[in-house]
Amino acid sequence: MFESAEIGHAIDRSTYDAEVPALREALLDAQYRLKEQARFPVLILINGIEGAGKGETVKLLSEWMDPRLIRVESFDMRSDEELAHPPSWRYWRKLPPKGRMGVFFGNWYSQMLQDRVHGKIKDKELELALGRAERMERMLCDEGTLIFKLWFHLSKQQMKARLQTLKADPLHSWRISPLDWQQSKTYDKFVRHGEHVLRRSSREYAPWYVIDGSDERYRSLTVGRILLEGMQAALADNSSVAPAPHAAPMEASFEGPNLLDRLDLSQSLSKEAYKQQLIEEQARLSRLFRDPRLRERAVVAVFEGHDAAGKGGAIRRVTGALDPRMYRIVPVSAPSEDERAQPWLWRFWRNVPERGNFTIFDRSWYGRVLVERVEGFCSPADWLRAYDEINDFEEQLVDAGVVLVKFWLSIDPDEQLARFKARETNPLKRFKITEEDWRNREKLGEYSMAVSDMVDRTSTEIAHWTMVEANDKRFARVKVLRTLNEALERAIE
Amino acid sequence: MFESAEIGHAIDRSTYDAEVPALREALLDAQYRLKEQARFPVLILINGIEGAGKGETVKLLSEWMDPRLIRVESFDMRSDEELAHPPSWRYWRKLPPKGRMGVFFGNWYSQMLQDRVHGKIKDKELELALGRAERMERMLCDEGTLIFKLWFHLSKQQMKARLQTLKADPLHSWRISPLDWQQSKTYDKFVRHGEHVLRRSSREYAPWYVIDGSDERYRSLTVGRILLEGMQAALADNSSVAPAPHAAPMEASFEGPNLLDRLDLSQSLSKEAYKQQLIEEQARLSRLFRDPRLRERAVVAVFEGHDAAGKGGAIRRVTGALDPRMYRIVPVSAPSEDERAQPWLWRFWRNVPERGNFTIFDRSWYGRVLVERVEGFCSPADWLRAYDEINDFEEQLVDAGVVLVKFWLSIDPDEQLARFKARETNPLKRFKITEEDWRNREKLGEYSMAVSDMVDRTSTEIAHWTMVEANDKRFARVKVLRTLNEALERAIE
Repeated sequence: MFESAEIGHAIDRSTYDAEVPALREALLDAQYRLKEQARFPVLILINGIEGAGKGETVKLLSEWMDPRLIRVESFDMRSDEELAHPPSWRYWRKLPPKGRMGVFFGNWYSQMLQDRVHGKIKDKELELALGRAERMERMLCDEGTLIFKLWFHLSKQQMKARLQTLKADPLHSWRISPLDWQQSKTYDKFVRHGEHVLRRSSREYAPWYVIDGSDERYRSLTVGRILLEGMQAALADNSSVAPAPHAAPMEASFEGPNLLDRLDLSQSLSKEAYKQQLIEEQARLSRLFRDPRLRERAVVAVFEGHDAAGKGGAIRRVTGALDPRMYRIVPVSAPSEDERAQPWLWRFWRNVPERGNFTIFDRSWYGRVLVERVEGFCSPADWLRAYDEINDFEEQLVDAGVVLVKFWLSIDPDEQLARFKARETNPLKRFKITEEDWRNREKLGEYSMAVSDMVDRTSTEIAHWTMVEANDKRFARVKVLRTLNEALERAIE
Repeated sequence: MFESAEIGHAIDRSTYDAEVPALREALLDAQYRLKEQARFPVLILINGIEGAGKGETVKLLSEWMDPRLIRVESFDMRSDEELAHPPSWRYWRKLPPKGRMGVFFGNWYSQMLQDRVHGKIKDKELELALGRAERMERMLCDEGTLIFKLWFHLSKQQMKARLQTLKADPLHSWRISPLDWQQSKTYDKFVRHGEHVLRRSSREYAPWYVIDGSDERYRSLTVGRILLEGMQAALADNSSVAPAPHAAPMEASFEGPNLLDRLDLSQSLSKEAYKQQLIEEQARLSRLFRDPRLRERAVVAVFEGHDAAGKGGAIRRVTGALDPRMYRIVPVSAPSEDERAQPWLWRFWRNVPERGNFTIFDRSWYGRVLVERVEGFCSPADWLRAYDEINDFEEQLVDAGVVLVKFWLSIDPDEQLARFKARETNPLKRFKITEEDWRNREKLGEYSMAVSDMVDRTSTEIAHWTMVEANDKRFARVKVLRTLNEALERAIE
């Protein structure tokens, strides 16, 4: 969930200086239109890691925009007056009215996270708090509020570096002191529970944005753009007098490279190293599948990747180590008539393996947020809620003891072109290349963004994505096998 | 929540025989249109009290309708195959496809209720199970499923009588044997937790219907009509090719008298009895408010009722016993400009009393589902979700220790007319009667249905409605005072 936010985005000063004036003007314009229309309020929730620039960004926003139309509320310890009322009373009284913007610096998420990190509540209570937050936000959204949820992120190394150079944030994080943050353990807990909170509370009507907080210019421009795009979309949609439910757009035009661009595709294995490692990993896999402890678990492996990235080859190296009765491959293409008559996840539910079985999905439920999104086979509302539905589905698998591994096999456009051409000239492989593959190729940019969003929104503490650098097939195959073996070993430990 | 279902609805044989043929024809017609359109499936969840006719009704539905297009699935103990998969797998595989109807006899609600009644899970786990059910149903609804949730009810006396005359239902209730049901305690627990489950899981897109199960003809006709009206509305709404989220209508044309018709408005107090009881109850109230144990609690009293039912007079008898610094009266009329710029509940949140204080609402948040509903001041979607929002709001009050009492003061149309006329001729009271009151009077039927729905959907285990028979003002005032006193005594026990 924090993958994209840790690749180190940065924007140079000249780009920044060139872009800020237009952004500020547009933000001010949006603010005034918001005020004039007075149809809905904007609520911005600020959360994340200490030192990731939460306070600075909020300060900057107030400078960029008209401060009379945006109000920052800070929630720390409950006052006596607040303690004498139900817990959510403090938030209700500070809600921004229609036409205005409110920033909740410290909010229900900070509170539940601090309580969980400090062990004041356990997982179940966290879950109940998440339920209450969901009801609150759904009500606000039904009443017209446009909600932005921003999580400012830093990797552990970045955080440690920042804490040394920076003084404590004037609007510091709710009840975790900078001293607490010095402890590695605090960071780990905070990020682990934070990821859980983000996964469970990112909804299509109020999605989270994870902001890479390491570079001030990147962070500022990104936040500014997210707000601007979301507000412009909501302001344009004034078809009805009544407040319509708005949702911040999930796709914001982030600056710079995405996850896929940052993969080191030059990684490779020599033929000899490959031969030896392949045999080792296959033997390990075979041993693992004979382990009686695995009989109580089902195993699901998901293979997604660029066209011609070598999914089939990788799958064959996995199954090569196993008795054919031990696994089942489910190739996923267009749904059948029966399947189209059911909720979209139905065709995957029917293929969930029984305990003791192993199912390999050659493409999967992720088609919903990849091809169906890019090709417009389903509406934006459909694929936007699919992230939640997928996370929920996978949670049910993992809760039932399923070992779930997910691979994205990535190649670059040049490598793909070479493979397409090779396929066309090889009579044995010609069937593998179609007009559609060439058409998809033209949309590589859109697919790339969809993949990046997919990983950010569905790589979770319970079901991590493994990015496989697949320009070199040998490297990719061994990485797949090794990752699978490691997951199985962790499962039976 | 079960108020309406316990007033003993019945339909005579000739009415029944006259209505059934047309109902069956219309249901069959709806089934065929459902099949032809093949745009969405219909899912019917069956729950409720043993002996309330769940099995018989399901059987009857299959007889009335085309059995090839409706399928009854019964979920009892999980089979070995089901145990080897995630818990919800068993439901997924039995989902009706688009164009068909599925009846889930025994379902996620039966399971969580049995587990709770038998003490296998506690309140927190029940809450988590409710969260999972909500996600499942929301997903189904987003995917187009039209969901009906039917709760078959009997009062304890009725149940006991039925259990003696009836053999065990062939499709008997999930894991509670008829023997279990013989125990009074089982009924009490089941109803208490059942009410909680209904309150938390009744959503505007998948509302619960509570069916009075005591009379077979009433029960059959009512269920048939609910299904018919819901299906017809969803079938008519074929504006889009994609499945639209449907919701079963909350207002179904129930047969016969409603809650208000069943009140015994002839109850009265003689002048002398009134004088004495009033003094007693006022003294008791005054004592209670000086009790130090009450300082840790806030008290909220809600007064709703027909125009001219005597809310003001009743409130004065309450406040008459108290020092003016001890209470605050909040008269609720049209919202101010500030209030209109906020979520609708905001103006009530801002008036939630601090611990140790007492607030009387002269009309309240229930205006949302009364006048705003009947007069069309808000959309059906708005007032439909208001039931959930209100229940959620009141839960937060009660969880924070607020003592909450809610009164509906009821008079009949004749009494109202007499009071209106008396007001017109009394110069001191003339200001109390307006054109609007006369207009409202013309909609007494609609208001009556709205009140009945309100009580059914918001009289909960945490915040009960007290119906006050108010044709006799003396009787009403003493009942209000006594009820308030009893609630306060329970609170400080």
